[in-house]
This record gives sequence, structure tokens and C-alpha cells, in this order.
Amino acid sequence: MFEELKKEVYRANMLLPEYGLAPFTWGNASGVDRKNNIIVIKPSGVPYPELTWEMMVVVDFDGNVIDSKYNPSSDTLTHIELYNAFPEIGGAVHTHSKYATAFAQSGRPIPPLGTTHADFSYGAVPCTRSLTEEEINSAYEKNTGVVICNHFKDNKLDANAVPGVLVRSHGVFAWGKNPVKATENAATLEIVAEMALNTFILKSDVSDIDSYLLDKHYLRKHGKNAYYGQGK
Amino acid sequence: MFEELKKEVYRANMLLPEYGLAPFTWGNASGVDRKNNIIVIKPSGVPYPELTWEMMVVVDFDGNVIDSKYNPSSDTLTHIELYNAFPEIGGAVHTHSKYATAFAQSGRPIPPLGTTHADFSYGAVPCTRSLTEEEINSAYEKNTGVVICNHFKDNKLDANAVPGVLVRSHGVFAWGKNPVKATENAATLEIVAEMALNTFILKSDVSDIDSYLLDKHYLRKHGKNAYYGQGK
Amino acid sequence: MFEELKKEVYRANMLLPEYGLAPFTWGNASGVDRKNNIIVIKPSGVPYPELTWEMMVVVDFDGNVIDSKYNPSSDTLTHIELYNAFPEIGGAVHTHSKYATAFAQSGRPIPPLGTTHADFSYGAVPCTRSLTEEEINSAYEKNTGVVICNHFKDNKLDANAVPGVLVRSHGVFAWGKNPVKATENAATLEIVAEMALNTFILKSDVSDIDSYLLDKHYLRKHGKNAYYGQGK
Amino acid sequence: MFEELKKEVYRANMLLPEYGLAPFTWGNASGVDRKNNIIVIKPSGVPYPELTWEMMVVVDFDGNVIDSKYNPSSDTLTHIELYNAFPEIGGAVHTHSKYATAFAQSGRPIPPLGTTHADFSYGAVPCTRSLTEEEINSAYEKNTGVVICNHFKDNKLDANAVPGVLVRSHGVFAWGKNPVKATENAATLEIVAEMALNTFILKSDVSDIDSYLLDKHYLRKHGKNAYYGQGK
Repeated sequence: MFEELKKEVYRANMLLPEYGLAPFTWGNASGVDRKNNIIVIKPSGVPYPELTWEMMVVVDFDGNVIDSKYNPSSDTLTHIELYNAFPEIGGAVHTHSKYATAFAQSGRPIPPLGTTHADFSYGAVPCTRSLTEEEINSAYEKNTGVVICNHFKDNKLDANAVPGVLVRSHGVFAWGKNPVKATENAATLEIVAEMALNTFILKSDVSDIDSYLLDKHYLRKHGKNAYYGQGK
Repeated sequence: MFEELKKEVYRANMLLPEYGLAPFTWGNASGVDRKNNIIVIKPSGVPYPELTWEMMVVVDFDGNVIDSKYNPSSDTLTHIELYNAFPEIGGAVHTHSKYATAFAQSGRPIPPLGTTHADFSYGAVPCTRSLTEEEINSAYEKNTGVVICNHFKDNKLDANAVPGVLVRSHGVFAWGKNPVKATENAATLEIVAEMALNTFILKSDVSDIDSYLLDKHYLRKHGKNAYYGQGK
Repeated sequence: MFEELKKEVYRANMLLPEYGLAPFTWGNASGVDRKNNIIVIKPSGVPYPELTWEMMVVVDFDGNVIDSKYNPSSDTLTHIELYNAFPEIGGAVHTHSKYATAFAQSGRPIPPLGTTHADFSYGAVPCTRSLTEEEINSAYEKNTGVVICNHFKDNKLDANAVPGVLVRSHGVFAWGKNPVKATENAATLEIVAEMALNTFILKSDVSDIDSYLLDKHYLRKHGKNAYYGQGK
Repeated sequence: MFEELKKEVYRANMLLPEYGLAPFTWGNASGVDRKNNIIVIKPSGVPYPELTWEMMVVVDFDGNVIDSKYNPSSDTLTHIELYNAFPEIGGAVHTHSKYATAFAQSGRPIPPLGTTHADFSYGAVPCTRSLTEEEINSAYEKNTGVVICNHFKDNKLDANAVPGVLVRSHGVFAWGKNPVKATENAATLEIVAEMALNTFILKSDVSDIDSYLLDKHYLRKHGKNAYYGQGK
């Protein structure tokens, strides 16, 4: 059941250590099947070398496990909030990748300082507010998702155009049209974070790139007038 | 004799270069057998590629070698102090990993700036005071352990909840329930050190995370109400 | 047709991920055949592991594709400007390598701070001005090349002696006598960028190296009195 | 002829890219045979993957090539100065390793900030003065060696206890009892440079370690009372 999606989610998870985004048991990737109203996600706390595609856990949109002996990732309810709020995404990823997490710990968004960023995200990668004590103690993982989604709603951000976020004092959630693309977005987010930090060392008051350069690069890769790639 | 523990300590030692924590002959990992009152530790000055599990050295709690032609790690007496002071630990590791050592050289503790840290340690990774000239010249390695253990006692720190320390101007000692877990804690300590240094570049006056977020992350992974992992 | 050049361009492209200069589908390398007035370049948006030499795309100097089912790199018209303006180069490369891109994002050139730089470039690696909105919206890729070439002309820089440039808010173009040498220059440019950034951390007001040391190192490796290497 | 030394020098050279100290054709290692008054060194400008032990070049103490079709490293005369001035060394290495070169470019020595440094060098890794225009234009490589050796003599430094140096605006020379040990010293010098730079980020006015800690660590690894290792 859901063999194809399990294999895809497995592949996305295995890319996390390969891209240097998650050692040990850290991080997790998921995918969604919107027809059947289920998501498939990494089992909690299993080291990557021990994973197999059959171990991927199927859960419904309330987080109930369907036919698995494994516990799903402890961050499952955050993923579900993302799938609920962002109807066009097909995959989501959570990491504590190093440079992006430094930004999350500092509470600073990653501003668009160059075309590497513009190729990937149509504007800054935002940083959420901190969760309150009440939000943490009542339903931490669900509320992490709520805070992300409210940040996007309140700031009129389009999750299709800004494919990732920093959660204050925590780490990264990223997403995409499928689980592997979500992982690639998490990897790119880490690269632009590293470039941004080094740019700040060279010029502490650097400005965002010109809006027309942001437009140009984002739109040559994304949307109906994109001309990057093989046009499939 | 002690074949199983030797193999486990060998495995923990071999993870040190694999995790990028110790090149050449640097670093060492040990394990303890509390029933038989012995510890097993890396032989001194042997490059990792030349190690075999049979070369691991058994010593008693006074540091006397039992049935081996190899000298034990020159840091053996520090390990023994840790095993004496922290009765619940089963393994200990010493490294000069790069970012953590930069903190040790600066005399700054690694503060808990995010959930990556909170998942691993219930509060800052402390930095000891410098050893005195007298302490260095009389019984250096033993006194290194004494200074660590006194730091924990004087500051009422729980070694089970704070699984590592920076020794001023020197490097890292880390520990865990067994030798492999001690090595993983040393690796995580290095990652949080790197993240913390980069966070300071982004925001020099960054604050520790909220105590309730520290509680949440530490306690969802550790202790009787933990819900991370497969619950074994 | 053009099999040898296609293989050479393929090899230069495959060095980009090997040297850590371009993950995923990023970056591109090209080569020129000046007798036949064509250039050979990476197809747009194809991940490196999927590339074969047969997929390299031949285009004429107007950017028209000759006998290929693949779209050429979206940066093709920039490469063509370089080949037009710099008649002695045989290969060109575009990357968003991390340290060099941080310099491009800061708008700072990479100054010659040591002999590593002098061995490679006879003076600073310059950083172009930003493109105007008009330049971006009319013929972005061609104008990127125009801005590079005008920078060299206006500043009387010799492209044979300064084998790379930073494009403001964007990334790197580098070149050389052939495609593989262009890639090696892009890799060296990234190394000197990293060294320069770290030098600024150690001494924010560091000066360029003495002109006679720059001369010595550049000229012992380049030109008719060079004595580095096997003298072929 | 000199087969054993050629193999040893070959091995030391191949460790340079393996340790991340020298890409492409950069860097070089040599060894000396003091009975026969010759040194063996890497051929100039040959990429590491193309090297074989037979290609190592034998030169006399005037730099004349003995029975080889290859040109020796362009830095050969610097190596010869080191062997002349430091009679106890058996191998020497030149690199532009990244962090150490940043220190050389800044003109700052690498101070002993911790025991990692003390285990390796009995005090700071010094940085030479710049060469004068006259010194560069007359006999550059020989004078590089002269400036190093004079720095050691003028500052009463012992080359056996301080096994490396930064040449101002240039890079690293390191040495040891044999070629492989020289390479290991170059690698350690790079690690302590990285740690020192990161320590400066954390605490810009950090002090050198206490002299008795420097003594303790240096002397437990070096000299007649050393007790690190297997005592051979």
C-alpha cells in the first residue's frame, strides 16, 4: 500500500544525510497523497543507514498511524499543518542544517542578496516568531506548524514562491511539489544561508538585490514564462 | 577477556575520525565495566587505521594496565575521574574537535541557543577554569578530571543531562550511557559549537532559548516521558 | 560532429561538481571552436549525474542551436559575449561558488592579498557594476556579458591575465585557454575568495601584496619567462 | 638510486591533497639524504594524480638536477636553505593551505591558544617579514629560505621545537624528522590556524596559554621525558 510514495519519501529522506543536512537520526522528509488523505513520513529516531522504504510510516491527517509497527517522526503534526495550509505542495522536509539554523537561532530572516537566492525563493526566507510557553506546552508540534502557516498568511507570502522557513530558535522547514524537490529546496536554503552569512562578514549593511533582478531570476526558472531547463 | 567491551570501545574510537573529530592519533574513547572495576581505552599514540579491537587496553581504576603490551591513552586518568564522579555513565570520549576547541580556547561556554542544543544537553556546555601550575605539574591528567568533576559539583550540574564539557585552553570531554553514545555526544557538541559561533556572527548579543523550549526539547528526547524514537 | 570539443566541454562540466563549485543543475562550462564559429555548452537544467558528452549543445555565435534536441544553458549568450570580446580564450565557466558569490553579493572585488592569488591572476578579481532594470529586462544574459566586457575595457584589464570576474549580486564567470583550464581558474578563484574573506577577519584593513611580489609570482607561472612546470 | 627516499617523498607528496592541503599541482614535499648530500623533491607543476615515485627529482645542494628528465619544484632552493640551516630535519613541505595562508596574508603569527597547538609547536608559529624588492628580483626562492632561517636565528627559535613558519603574503613551510612527519606538521599547522581564527571570532583579545600548560603538553609528547605513545 502506497509503495510508490513510500519509495519516494524514502529517497527524499536518504538525500538529507547525503546533502549534509542531517546526521544520525536528525531531520525528516514526508510526502502527501491528497486523493487518499494520507501522508508518508520517516519513522521517529531511526538512523539513516538502517532505514528501508518499507519502514516509512503512513498516517492520516489527524496523525493516526495506518498499518505500521513504527512510530512516525515526532514532527508529523507540523508536516500535517503545512499540507493543510499549502494545498499545492507534495513534499515537506525538516532539518537543523547548520547555517540556516544559525539564522534561526539569531532570529534573522535570510534576505535575498543575490541570484542564487532569487533562483530559489521569491524574496527572503522568513523567520517565525517564537512560540509561547502555552503553545509549546499544549500541542508543540502542531503549533509549530500553525505559527509557520500564520506567518505566511499574515505576511501574504506565497508558499509556492517561498519554499521554506526558519522556525525561531529551532531550524528549517522546506517544501516543494514532491518530497525530493522539498529536500533540494532545503539544501539550497542551506547554501544561501551560508552565502548570506559570509556576505554579512564582508559588508554588514548589504542591501537586498534589486527587485527587477529578483523578478528576472525567479521568473526565468519558475512559472509559465520560465525558459530555464528542457521545457518539460 | 572483556572482548565485548573492547569491541565496543574500538567501534567508538573508529567513529572519532569518521565523524571528523580526530585526525592522526588524536582523541580517545573508553568504556567501563563497573562490575569488574575496569575500564577499556585506546592505546596511546596509535593512528586510527592501525587500530584493532584487540589493541584496546584494559586498566583498573588506579590506571594500572591489565594484561596488555600497549600503553593506554595518556588521558586515562582523566577518564577514570569521570567514571568515579558520574556513576551512570558507561563511556567517555576526548577530542580536540575544531569549533568546540575554539570555544575552549576562548574560555566561553556553549550556550543553548536553539533546539539542536536542547535535544542534546539540558543547558549550556560549560567551560572549566584553567588548571593551576601546581595542578598541571603534579598530576596533570588526574587533575583535569578533578577540575571537570568539581565544576559539575560546584555548579550543581547533572552529568546525565549535560553530557560534555570544555576544558579551558584544551578541548572536549563528552560521555554517555555507552562508548558509542559518548562519541555521538562529542559529535553533537561540535555541531552545536559551530552553530553557536555562526549565530554570534549574526547576532553578537543573542539570548539563550526560552527555558520552556529547552524543557520541551530535552524532555521529549530524554527521561520517562520522552516520546521521540521507537520507545524501546 | 565536434566530438572532441564536446568531450572536452563535458569533462570541464563534470569538474564543476567534483571541485564543489556547482551542485544540482547549477553552473555551466563551454568551449569554442573559432575556425567553425561555434561554441559547445552544457544543456540547460540537466543534473550532472545525468550528463553525457553527446548531450553537449552546439550553438553558433548568435546562439542558434545546431543539430541538438537539448536547449543550451540559459547563460549561453553571456558566454558568447566573452568569446567575442576575449579572442584568446578557449573555454568559459559560470558558477555560484560560495565564497566568490559572497564577494559578488557584497559588491567587493577580491584583492590580491598573497601569492596564491598572484599565481592565478595579475591583480584583483574585479566586481562589475549592477545591471540596470532596462539591461535586465531587455536582453539579460547578453547584457551580463556586455557589462563584464565593458568593465574589462574601461579598466584596461587584460582577460588573459585576469581570468575571472564577479558579476554584482550574481556569481562568477571564469575563462582560460580551454574549458578544463577555465574550470580550474573558477576553482582557484573560489579558493582565493575564501582565503581573502578569512584574511579580512584577521585584519580588516589588510593591504594588497607588493607589486613586485605580484609580478614575480604571476610571471614565474605565466608568459615567455615562466619557469614553473615542465616547460612544455 | 635513492629509491627508498623517492618512495618516501612520493608518499609525503600524495598526503598533501589527501589532507586537503594542496589541490591541482600546488604544494611540494621533499626529503634529504645527508650522507649523500642530495635532496629528493616533487617535479614542478605535475598534478598529483599523475605522480609516480619514479618521477621524484634528485638534486644536489646547489639545486643541480641529478639524472632526471623532470624539472624539480620551483621552490627547491627554499627547501635547500631549510636543510642547510636546520641540520636535524629530514623532510620539508610547502603549502598554501587555506587558514594558515589567511594568517600569512594578514601578517599575523599563529599564537599558542591551546593544547592542540602546544602538542605540536613549542610556541607561536611565526610569520616572517616581507621580502624586499631586491630579494625578490635577485634570487627569490633562495631568499625566501634565507628570510625564514634568519627569522629563526634572530628570534632564537629552535626549528625542532617550532616545526613550521608562515611566509608573509605567501604560505606555509613546515618540516620534520622525515618527509611524512613534515606533511603531518603542515596539516596540524592548518588545523591550529583554523582553531585560532575561530577563537579570535569568539574573543578578539584572547591570551596565549599559560607557559606551564605549553610546557606540559609539548614535553609530554616531545623530548626525553615524553610519555605519550608506545615509547619506541
